[in-house]
Amino acid sequence: MDKRELIIDALQQLFEEGKAGTASVSEIARKANIAKGGMYYYFKSKEEVLDALVERVYQNIINECESVINQSKENAVSKMKLLLDHYRQSYVDPTLDEYLHMPENAGIHQKSLVQISTSLSPIISRILEQGVQEGIFICDYPQQYADIIMSVFSFLLDPGLFLRSRQNMILELKGFADLLEKGLNAPEKSFSFLYTFK
Amino acid sequence: MDKRELIIDALQQLFEEGKAGTASVSEIARKANIAKGGMYYYFKSKEEVLDALVERVYQNIINECESVINQSKENAVSKMKLLLDHYRQSYVDPTLDEYLHMPENAGIHQKSLVQISTSLSPIISRILEQGVQEGIFICDYPQQYADIIMSVFSFLLDPGLFLRSRQNMILELKGFADLLEKGLNAPEKSFSFLYTFK
Repeated sequence: MDKRELIIDALQQLFEEGKAGTASVSEIARKANIAKGGMYYYFKSKEEVLDALVERVYQNIINECESVINQSKENAVSKMKLLLDHYRQSYVDPTLDEYLHMPENAGIHQKSLVQISTSLSPIISRILEQGVQEGIFICDYPQQYADIIMSVFSFLLDPGLFLRSRQNMILELKGFADLLEKGLNAPEKSFSFLYTFK
Repeated sequence: MDKRELIIDALQQLFEEGKAGTASVSEIARKANIAKGGMYYYFKSKEEVLDALVERVYQNIINECESVINQSKENAVSKMKLLLDHYRQSYVDPTLDEYLHMPENAGIHQKSLVQISTSLSPIISRILEQGVQEGIFICDYPQQYADIIMSVFSFLLDPGLFLRSRQNMILELKGFADLLEKGLNAPEKSFSFLYTFK
């Protein structure tokens, strides 16, 4: 494994141990078994390591979502459920998630949301196109609908941005499902998976 | 005018002069004709003044949108056009806007987007309800549709987050108009104002 990845691993471990918030660059280097001087060859600051870690975490989520969809042979509605459920349940270490929601890390957070939206949107768009071919959906703007879906997930449904009761969250998801069903001319309840939790 | 407002005015003037980025707390105080010590009674740091300025700028936009809608006697489609056009054309000093899009100010930016979404959403919701009463729209989830509309504006259509050609921006807006028309069962082209610019 290359040294760059080892340094990112070290910060990830510090997050899992709950020590990342206060960890200095030296501590990250020590954890990675790398001389502090060598570390600066890869990263100029702790923020850069954090940035790389966040990018890796989100890239992993994107890769998993892609692989789940590529392996599926189901129809468009089932694929939408598969993808969006997988995305929503994707694991981000709670300490890292909390860190991302601190005002001073909003820049990295926003960048990661743009990254994940830009990456997942083409996958959703292809599923919508599949649905049109299957005769389940009617949609002249699959790419744009996909972008809207991702922006609702990235902004409106972020519990770190909007504090909501569980009941209000379910209402938001019901409204969102209703808009998608009507927009796509999809059978009623096609998107009920959005608000019916395990 | 109270001193707090004078200090915010001073930072606003510094923005207009293009000097806000490098201005120190002392310079803001000098501009406001307030002793530096007195200034700390109102604001602990430059960031706090900036925060207050951004809040005031966005609160003014919210107030103007509210007043424009309260004075209108038009139908729901015209009111939607009135509100969304007014919101999109609302003036934010370009230097302040640029400042808000720097990664280190993403926290304040995000807060202001949440503030404006939360404030404009009930106004949009009332317009949608009016449309239902007028028989122009069908909508069981006016509040949730309104939240989705605001999140598309706050995230997807933010040119500071997503770089797009003018052509792609128009496509995004066409897709968004299409989704709203279908979702609300509104007459075709009701939302064409979204993509037909002056």
